[in-house]
Amino acid sequence: MKIKDHFWRTISGRKNDDTGEILIEIIDQTQLPHQFVVRHLNSLAEVAHAIRHMQVRGAPLIGATAAYGMALALKHGADDAALADAAQTLVATRPTAVNLRWAVERMMARVQPLAVQERFAAAWDEATTICEEDVSLNLAIGQHGAALIRELSQRHRRTINILTHCNAGWLAAVDWGTALAPIYKAFDEGIPLHVWVDETRPRNQGASLTAWELAQHGVPHTVIADNAGGHLMQHGEVDMVIVGADRVTSNGDVCNKIGTYLKALAAFDNRIPFYAAVPSPTIDWNMANGLRDIPIEERGAEEVAWVQGRLPNGDIARVHVLPEGSPAANPAFDVTPARLVTGIITEKGVCAPASLPAMFAS
Amino acid sequence: MKIKDHFWRTISGRKNDDTGEILIEIIDQTQLPHQFVVRHLNSLAEVAHAIRHMQVRGAPLIGATAAYGMALALKHGADDAALADAAQTLVATRPTAVNLRWAVERMMARVQPLAVQERFAAAWDEATTICEEDVSLNLAIGQHGAALIRELSQRHRRTINILTHCNAGWLAAVDWGTALAPIYKAFDEGIPLHVWVDETRPRNQGASLTAWELAQHGVPHTVIADNAGGHLMQHGEVDMVIVGADRVTSNGDVCNKIGTYLKALAAFDNRIPFYAAVPSPTIDWNMANGLRDIPIEERGAEEVAWVQGRLPNGDIARVHVLPEGSPAANPAFDVTPARLVTGIITEKGVCAPASLPAMFAS
Repeated sequence: MKIKDHFWRTISGRKNDDTGEILIEIIDQTQLPHQFVVRHLNSLAEVAHAIRHMQVRGAPLIGATAAYGMALALKHGADDAALADAAQTLVATRPTAVNLRWAVERMMARVQPLAVQERFAAAWDEATTICEEDVSLNLAIGQHGAALIRELSQRHRRTINILTHCNAGWLAAVDWGTALAPIYKAFDEGIPLHVWVDETRPRNQGASLTAWELAQHGVPHTVIADNAGGHLMQHGEVDMVIVGADRVTSNGDVCNKIGTYLKALAAFDNRIPFYAAVPSPTIDWNMANGLRDIPIEERGAEEVAWVQGRLPNGDIARVHVLPEGSPAANPAFDVTPARLVTGIITEKGVCAPASLPAMFAS
Repeated sequence: MKIKDHFWRTISGRKNDDTGEILIEIIDQTQLPHQFVVRHLNSLAEVAHAIRHMQVRGAPLIGATAAYGMALALKHGADDAALADAAQTLVATRPTAVNLRWAVERMMARVQPLAVQERFAAAWDEATTICEEDVSLNLAIGQHGAALIRELSQRHRRTINILTHCNAGWLAAVDWGTALAPIYKAFDEGIPLHVWVDETRPRNQGASLTAWELAQHGVPHTVIADNAGGHLMQHGEVDMVIVGADRVTSNGDVCNKIGTYLKALAAFDNRIPFYAAVPSPTIDWNMANGLRDIPIEERGAEEVAWVQGRLPNGDIARVHVLPEGSPAANPAFDVTPARLVTGIITEKGVCAPASLPAMFAS
């Protein structure tokens, strides 16, 4: 996507075929929207740190970054022990998103059968392929999802209001995004739309990332407190909800950023369609009960206690918002039961949650 | 309630009967939990400013402060024009809480029939009475609500987890509070309990006021992002929800801080009892459809854009959390339909929303 007339991806891997040097470049998302900082990842440890500390985040991007992390690790030693160590280190960084495990397993399957000296080159190719595939999956999601927005636009003949939670835009993927891909596609087609952006406490990915990407692209949007969506839905100010997902189970339960479930309940209560935009690597075919089985990451209380922003003088600072000594809890995801989900938007098309296995059966 | 071994009320009015001097003292709640600042209100304009800028907030406390504001205005001139001006100024400060209008109308009814020179003394008496009545109404709510907690405690024989949204503690009233009164009463009885405190964006009254009051009183509590409550309810970590209200209509619709509706939906979905603790001045008998008729205050976008807290060096500062130029919207309240409310806890007892008129008929 474009930032000030330059095309960017959230991650890019470059290899100098003459020298063998490689360069993995990411946008440090912990600095947005205040500063645009590009970082280079030079080791497995730096990749694990970037994922754990959410310099990169979003299920598809975590998968892509982990894939490059595997390649990077194998450059410095590609025997079975090194391979197992890299896989284990990466999978341990974040427990909830299934793409992480999916990408690591795919990398393992590709390189493990090879001779040690062939592994790095194959890993690099595979990581690059995973990134390219992510872009095309999300493009397809954008096309299928834009059709839903177009249909609403034709029915209502006014600006369509779409609510989204957290950031499932291009910053959460390699490009395009999942939940925001349909919005970008529809906007680029000229369909009048407006996005309600949940700020998404405690890390504020909506306020800091979604609002920023939409602003860069010129998409009309308004940031709201996470508390406000229900009220807007009660008053007809939301036409549809689109969110991303960190994991979707085979029965259609949607695990996504904490608070998604509350928006799904409100959408259901107000008969507003609620969609999750999900590329197939986010679907966990081995799980059929998300509420019971998906491990929910409990992140540090300091994410609730400290808020980062710009001081009036422009400096970036963190302020503590709790009374001294009051504890906080920080479950990072929740599970929206399939019964509350109108449809899943995948690269193959849109289907009811229960039809997910059938859609991917062929 | 106690703060470091001293008893405080959120507002106190003192009159020197010899000199006629009066003193109205409030705790400036915009400075909590970082600083404990007491302010004196010396004019109608200062009272209006304190209400509008939420130095005092919470439906019962707004009513009590407005009552003292009327008295203060009448000290400097008590003819009909002054009376009407004071009433109009105060009612215009906040549109949603019904206690404000209730208190102003009660003051008018008391003083308007009197001769001009008798009005100030009567107004002062009436304001003092309103404050004393608020304390006793909330004490009664505490007793009725504590019985509900006691019953859960006896049934489960473990710590009872109660979720609350915003601040409806003693800081929201003259003393005791509404939603927190049952919690203080049950805690003082020795019932093991723990409170989940929604931080309550955008103004963070949960994180800054509810957590602070509970900590001062020694009540176990944990602050959570507003997004987390649904997940906790899905996993059996919430036994009941108690909130306050800014206005309850005669049919039992509950208007309270933005986001309350989302928690009510989640409680309903998980069969968790959801109570609103409401003294009778908060009930608007003239309205029977809260969702349609209660005016919802739209507050400034800067409340979403700026977050106040302590810098690592202890200084209090505000940080801007949005991208430059991204707009925000800030509806301050929402309405929870009566169908989602298990019961209303009033000074007369606990009843189903539909039974509210019957409970107050006698």
